[in-house]
Amino acid sequence: MGTGANLYHDMHHAMNMPLYRGSPFSRDVELRRFGVVRIYDILLDYNDVLMKTDDILRKIIIQKEFQKEMGTAELHYHIGKYCAEFERQCGIKDASVLAAAYRAGVPCYTSSPGDSTIGMNVAGVELRGNKLRINPSIDVNETTAIVLDAKMRKKKTGVLLMGGGSPKNFILQTEPQIQEVLRIKEIGHDFFLQFTDARPDTGGLSGATPSEAVSWGKIDPNQLPDAVVAYIDSTVALPLLTHYALARKAPRKLKRLYDRRAQMMEKLTAEYFKHNKDATPIG
Amino acid sequence: MGTGANLYHDMHHAMNMPLYRGSPFSRDVELRRFGVVRIYDILLDYNDVLMKTDDILRKIIIQKEFQKEMGTAELHYHIGKYCAEFERQCGIKDASVLAAAYRAGVPCYTSSPGDSTIGMNVAGVELRGNKLRINPSIDVNETTAIVLDAKMRKKKTGVLLMGGGSPKNFILQTEPQIQEVLRIKEIGHDFFLQFTDARPDTGGLSGATPSEAVSWGKIDPNQLPDAVVAYIDSTVALPLLTHYALARKAPRKLKRLYDRRAQMMEKLTAEYFKHNKDATPIG
Amino acid sequence: MGTGANLYHDMHHAMNMPLYRGSPFSRDVELRRFGVVRIYDILLDYNDVLMKTDDILRKIIIQKEFQKEMGTAELHYHIGKYCAEFERQCGIKDASVLAAAYRAGVPCYTSSPGDSTIGMNVAGVELRGNKLRINPSIDVNETTAIVLDAKMRKKKTGVLLMGGGSPKNFILQTEPQIQEVLRIKEIGHDFFLQFTDARPDTGGLSGATPSEAVSWGKIDPNQLPDAVVAYIDSTVALPLLTHYALARKAPRKLKRLYDRRAQMMEKLTAEYFKHNKDATPIG
Amino acid sequence: MGTGANLYHDMHHAMNMPLYRGSPFSRDVELRRFGVVRIYDILLDYNDVLMKTDDILRKIIIQKEFQKEMGTAELHYHIGKYCAEFERQCGIKDASVLAAAYRAGVPCYTSSPGDSTIGMNVAGVELRGNKLRINPSIDVNETTAIVLDAKMRKKKTGVLLMGGGSPKNFILQTEPQIQEVLRIKEIGHDFFLQFTDARPDTGGLSGATPSEAVSWGKIDPNQLPDAVVAYIDSTVALPLLTHYALARKAPRKLKRLYDRRAQMMEKLTAEYFKHNKDATPIG
Repeated sequence: MGTGANLYHDMHHAMNMPLYRGSPFSRDVELRRFGVVRIYDILLDYNDVLMKTDDILRKIIIQKEFQKEMGTAELHYHIGKYCAEFERQCGIKDASVLAAAYRAGVPCYTSSPGDSTIGMNVAGVELRGNKLRINPSIDVNETTAIVLDAKMRKKKTGVLLMGGGSPKNFILQTEPQIQEVLRIKEIGHDFFLQFTDARPDTGGLSGATPSEAVSWGKIDPNQLPDAVVAYIDSTVALPLLTHYALARKAPRKLKRLYDRRAQMMEKLTAEYFKHNKDATPIG
Repeated sequence: MGTGANLYHDMHHAMNMPLYRGSPFSRDVELRRFGVVRIYDILLDYNDVLMKTDDILRKIIIQKEFQKEMGTAELHYHIGKYCAEFERQCGIKDASVLAAAYRAGVPCYTSSPGDSTIGMNVAGVELRGNKLRINPSIDVNETTAIVLDAKMRKKKTGVLLMGGGSPKNFILQTEPQIQEVLRIKEIGHDFFLQFTDARPDTGGLSGATPSEAVSWGKIDPNQLPDAVVAYIDSTVALPLLTHYALARKAPRKLKRLYDRRAQMMEKLTAEYFKHNKDATPIG
Repeated sequence: MGTGANLYHDMHHAMNMPLYRGSPFSRDVELRRFGVVRIYDILLDYNDVLMKTDDILRKIIIQKEFQKEMGTAELHYHIGKYCAEFERQCGIKDASVLAAAYRAGVPCYTSSPGDSTIGMNVAGVELRGNKLRINPSIDVNETTAIVLDAKMRKKKTGVLLMGGGSPKNFILQTEPQIQEVLRIKEIGHDFFLQFTDARPDTGGLSGATPSEAVSWGKIDPNQLPDAVVAYIDSTVALPLLTHYALARKAPRKLKRLYDRRAQMMEKLTAEYFKHNKDATPIG
Repeated sequence: MGTGANLYHDMHHAMNMPLYRGSPFSRDVELRRFGVVRIYDILLDYNDVLMKTDDILRKIIIQKEFQKEMGTAELHYHIGKYCAEFERQCGIKDASVLAAAYRAGVPCYTSSPGDSTIGMNVAGVELRGNKLRINPSIDVNETTAIVLDAKMRKKKTGVLLMGGGSPKNFILQTEPQIQEVLRIKEIGHDFFLQFTDARPDTGGLSGATPSEAVSWGKIDPNQLPDAVVAYIDSTVALPLLTHYALARKAPRKLKRLYDRRAQMMEKLTAEYFKHNKDATPIG
């Protein structure tokens, strides 16, 4: 779960394109004149990186496997397949998140499919008749199905949040989707760990506490004492957490949730109709 | 342009449902036990407000006018029509944003259509066969068409941002969509005013400066000296700005952009093919 | 109560020296080369403003009335007298806080007397034998005496905080000074209003809540529901609050607390010995 | 360089008094009723820790060695001597910063000597005739002498800042004290490393950038590219930095700056008169 921008710019890495370390205090009017694009302290070339990645992305998404309605997990899986191939051609390894997720069967969702250069190009080729349609409801139901499947198999579920924003709510709303919309009795996620600089006092969801989430049924009230918000930059927190995890635990067998989507969706649908006898088919 | 949550909770106001002023320091485990839901310092009843609004929303979105593919402007327009009717029935005025936007023909977009109780219920009824499909590409192209239409008529365009997050990028990406994806020559928005607590140093888009946006072609470099970021809570800034605007300027004729979407999309499509002679139809 | 820097730079205003509105994004290496000093978005001349103010300040603090031990209220009162005279000579009004405080008999304290260009120059002339000695204990006891005097006359006391830092603790510690050090029974301040961007989670005193202050006896627990922290820039909050106060209330008679210091200190000392029969004189 | 509160509460550790890990979300009115004091997420007993430490502190500062005028380095050195003895009596090691600094000859300054329970008790016993006088000018001149001494011996100087506030300015003002007040030619500190959550946009000194400091002559412009501000909590940054330093470098010989204060002050005074032929003695 992330924003499309993270995954779009990941494609540069898959193709081994040059990104430069710059300064956040650059003179951006000059950068614009010289065709340099800035993301905080990272610099990239407008023509050789941005426009070129767009060209390649457009060629990918008009391929046959994209000519249908899908959720973003499937969209990113198919793009990841190309990224894995780019890595192979460039002779590089572990450069691309999309490629790694493709290989490991980890589904990558985004809550805002139109918002990013991926979404922009999907919309662009639609003007030319492309048949790809992103359906956000597929994402809502699939993410919910993953949680419900785990709960029904007596497994624990949790959320790990780098930052906040729309992705935070999207991953947390899986519980209300089960309880409030599908009307299946449930008690909330077991773990909550957020790294953020968003404070509760702004009133937004980014900084909302796990305690507030308890009032919505998003978090199991019994697990609240262990729910943690750490006010720290993700670029510091993630390496520390990753190093800790790798040092303490042996690698586990991959869950390959991507491959199990259809099966989990079937289970969700069956449970939904079981708990909603009055839910008549529409149309 | 906002998150779906803002618009979902707006429905409570349209139906004159009670929301209570509480405290951000509530005991949420007890709130949960008593069926009270908290949004920072606002309290609402789980059954009488949340579940009831969900019920009504589900009855709305299975109606005939929703049985098709659409963007979020159209989705919110149709829901706004019901909100306007709720207001009338309740004998209240100017309580609902959705109702006001419906009456004024202001299109309301969200960049994350699946992320909110609206998106959750749209996904829920899809399990029962509902035909409503939200297509994010429609939003990408419509918002871009609004900007292109203004620019072609030599009007100025600008962005006014309360907070940041995915909606910030979605509204700013209209310029790269014109220049980078549709390949139509353009120089960027004329105005940029953001109220936020997001600082640039986190590296995220929420706190990215207008100067950084210049390097992307999102903002006209000549207008940069007038671009403003004010680090202030929106609940303080918006009333001050609104009061200032109302005190200084007489009301203007409504633009009714919602009604002009089809016409603006036609213009965008024509321009696109004019600037991309090599853009062959797909499929 | 403030930092010395606020009061030092106030002297420029008293002498009608030019300060320029610049940009926080200046090229500071060039500014340094051209003798321009920057305070965020304010620019001043190194020689004509900074060095000249220093020269004048040094001439002031070697005058006869400064050749003794004193607290910062007295220090600033005497400097304020000169500022009032500068204003008169320049034909300007209400430009200087120090001059206004001098005329109104409002005592101005700083918790960090050595930290600022005032403190630096006081230290500088001490090398030449100047007899001025700032005694911080006088400030601790005088500020406490002001609170105790009000409480004994059944008046309410409160703290109004712009920002946080050392001045915040200094003004709040008046209550522990009464209760914990002087061992006089008391229940805490009646009002607490802070404008700040400091959040509690950093663990520092700047962002500590009024609730935490209750545990120390700094705030009356019964008044806690009315204690307010507003996360807002002081440059927005202070004009709003001032406008509100002036619009709602007629001017009140000046308290001239500066003139009553000796009398309040006597009362404090008497109370101290009354509540500490075992407090034998030292030396 | 720090606030007095850090050093006052350090005394509890020297005496092995119990401090408890609590929660920042405590019910403070109840804590007050039960005599428990809270510092964010640390809990301590009002009588057994706070009042008892005060009692002991008062007995210390009325001893013979305190009956004179001094700076805070000397004040803390003498208190540190008692802390070292407390540690010995309790059979504990490396618990107290004051004790460690005493043993290592590291001078500890505070820019706000009256602001803390140490300052409060110093002021309290002054009512009984105690002769201890804290002179902030001694601190201003001693800290400046340390920098000047290093510069004259062609050593590099730098500032390492945890947080901001008054201590930040106090340590940085050593350079303007040399250049602007004592009028000795100098070019600024060689290193600048700050860990803070204070952003520049608030306009305060806490968040002021090293670049702004260059315009004041506080930082050598040539070293600016290496000056770093890291927006991170000190409780994360300090262990990382310390671990890094210990892992990379062998222990160095102690500088014992405390012991060299008199000698460095002599040098400062000589330099001052050498560069200010017109500086006539006062009085």
